Amino acid sequence: MKQISGGVTAAQGFKATGLAVGIKKKSEKKDMALVYSEEPCKVAGTFTKNVVKAACVKYDMNVVENSPYAQAVVVNSGIANACTGKQGYEYCEATAKAASESLNIPASSVLVASTGVIGVQLPIDRIAEGVKLMTPLLGTSENDGTLAAEAIMTTDTHSKEIAYEVEIGGKTVTIGGMCKGSGMIHPNMCTMLAFVTTDANISKEMLTKAVKANVEDTFNMVSVDGDTSTNDTMLVMANGLAGNEEITEENEDFKKFSDALLAVNTYLAKQMAGDGEGATALFEVKVVGAESKEQAVTIAKSVVSSSLVKTAIAGHDANWGRICCAMGYSGAQFDPEKVDLYFISKAGELKIAENSVTTGYSEEKATEILSQPEITALIDIKMGNAEATAWGCDLTHEYISINADYRS
Amino acid sequence: MKQISGGVTAAQGFKATGLAVGIKKKSEKKDMALVYSEEPCKVAGTFTKNVVKAACVKYDMNVVENSPYAQAVVVNSGIANACTGKQGYEYCEATAKAASESLNIPASSVLVASTGVIGVQLPIDRIAEGVKLMTPLLGTSENDGTLAAEAIMTTDTHSKEIAYEVEIGGKTVTIGGMCKGSGMIHPNMCTMLAFVTTDANISKEMLTKAVKANVEDTFNMVSVDGDTSTNDTMLVMANGLAGNEEITEENEDFKKFSDALLAVNTYLAKQMAGDGEGATALFEVKVVGAESKEQAVTIAKSVVSSSLVKTAIAGHDANWGRICCAMGYSGAQFDPEKVDLYFISKAGELKIAENSVTTGYSEEKATEILSQPEITALIDIKMGNAEATAWGCDLTHEYISINADYRS
Repeated sequence: MKQISGGVTAAQGFKATGLAVGIKKKSEKKDMALVYSEEPCKVAGTFTKNVVKAACVKYDMNVVENSPYAQAVVVNSGIANACTGKQGYEYCEATAKAASESLNIPASSVLVASTGVIGVQLPIDRIAEGVKLMTPLLGTSENDGTLAAEAIMTTDTHSKEIAYEVEIGGKTVTIGGMCKGSGMIHPNMCTMLAFVTTDANISKEMLTKAVKANVEDTFNMVSVDGDTSTNDTMLVMANGLAGNEEITEENEDFKKFSDALLAVNTYLAKQMAGDGEGATALFEVKVVGAESKEQAVTIAKSVVSSSLVKTAIAGHDANWGRICCAMGYSGAQFDPEKVDLYFISKAGELKIAENSVTTGYSEEKATEILSQPEITALIDIKMGNAEATAWGCDLTHEYISINADYRS
Repeated sequence: MKQISGGVTAAQGFKATGLAVGIKKKSEKKDMALVYSEEPCKVAGTFTKNVVKAACVKYDMNVVENSPYAQAVVVNSGIANACTGKQGYEYCEATAKAASESLNIPASSVLVASTGVIGVQLPIDRIAEGVKLMTPLLGTSENDGTLAAEAIMTTDTHSKEIAYEVEIGGKTVTIGGMCKGSGMIHPNMCTMLAFVTTDANISKEMLTKAVKANVEDTFNMVSVDGDTSTNDTMLVMANGLAGNEEITEENEDFKKFSDALLAVNTYLAKQMAGDGEGATALFEVKVVGAESKEQAVTIAKSVVSSSLVKTAIAGHDANWGRICCAMGYSGAQFDPEKVDLYFISKAGELKIAENSVTTGYSEEKATEILSQPEITALIDIKMGNAEATAWGCDLTHEYISINADYRS
């Protein structure tokens, strides 16, 4: 497996672009992206479990479920198209229709996604015009994928894209992806918007299986602020152009494909966590020694989501009791007298607590470790061999500044 | 029912005091409180459901369960006595022993409570000395109750106490209480430290029943930051000195007592929410039209706990989509197309959304309403007649400042 450049356009047959069409208030900011495949694609997706689903989520769920193929995704940032009633759904249909006409593909093969403010209607004329303007731009730039990755950003501070090559059945298969974070992010199904493209030849059933398994260990292990969005969408499109023998069962080829997809999704998930709104550090919580994976997941997510743990990380303060506290209210059962805790970063590793009591560690060393941009809390509950890792970020003043007046 | 002054010392036979003994880093700050009853009391309590329980919580659970009477509570602020292992529990026993000797009461009738930093051992010599110093001070000041209420504060900006008089069976019964918030506060059983004293004559069974029912609608409906503490403790002591006929069943007297206790607890819970760390506003979320109380509770708690809703309130920004979003991920089922939402404060009432779509309300008016120190979001889900109210606060820069370096 080899990391390469190109993001969503790395795989054969995929083109993309991004453009500013005036949806965001700062009109120079790109706010529409288009991802297009020259060939029809198998498509799989996972979506928010929030009862309140954005119109585009409902729309895409239908496409993924019922359309034989997908060939394009139209994304806008700035407005979420959630809590927009019947009109919101009709605007999804109108967007698909515009892309269908412009790209000369069936409307049923167009997916749509939105992110931004909830409760406001899309400027549908501008969206339709945007699709028309983007079509001739597809494939005209060397950094197509990056343009698209930039256009889907909201409060993200940088774009997030990755691609890997892997050999499957003697053919070079490429998987690339992009995503955006950065607030209203908390794992439940998958989080935020992520789009992955691949030229792998794989059946829809196997593609779906790989995605569902993958998402549990990647995007679903990310939390920025505990708020599960109305718009969470993760889509994978596979056009088969790599020419490998079609993957139709859980064989060696499937495993190779899944591993490469896992690498893409893990990278994107960690990028998202580290670029959470206002974040100054990527905070990784690894729980080991668990009786079951479910137990490890529950504890890891609870710790990574705790406001008090996150503010302590922001302050580079080894206030480890807050970690024990967050473990304790997670809902998982464990022996509260048997927790070992370590802080790890590039600056070193330090055992902070043994059997739930302080080791008498050096506060100075702890602060040094916690002052790095990537920090791991390793928690051993000494009950078994299962483990899980969750990713989040610190909670800073900047998160408040960004969110206290997001709409203005 | 009449509101009176005196807090935990309002009821007959109760004395209290507070003192600075040097547990907190700022040594002039009061950090120990003692509440004492001249007569033995029936006692009831509710405690955190966090798996990681502070030593004092485990200690008090045993006293409430097994001791026939309680007569004193020793509280310290500054150190939580959580994650302190066997030694932490022995320090609870030593504290009770010190109070037993000083007050000349059985050690088994002494309750202990702590709040502050987790993972640090109590300075037990100073605690024992503090008990000895406080004993002669009991009843020597006119504002005994306030001294105690001040001594249990951590990051609270003001002390919280209240008392009510109610006539039961021809006798005047008094119930008074105090509590402290203000971080690591999220409902699960009860939150934070709250102490209520009464001269009512009531059986332990009925006292316990009244407390459990009460806590569900008061302290358990408060959230400041989603972190359920290791130390949450709510204790009610009843010494019987009012001379009313003993309440031993759910009769009219029981109802009067419960209503007065509810008034005390509601006041304390709201005070706690409004004085959450860094808070500038008390934020009330009222869900009506629910199919069941459980459904209403689930939705109200989810909205009041959302970081994104709380930051919007801090910014006086009517970003109502975040409320719908938090309802949606609450876990409760409801029709996402049928939500009506109102913002209410002293500045007026405004219908923001009808059937989950904006009413086209005035943003200016909404901001005016949201700029008040007490704000209500009224949510109608139009499914039935059940309702619930939760209390929280906005999320501000100050919360980060307080918690990024709490221990220094």
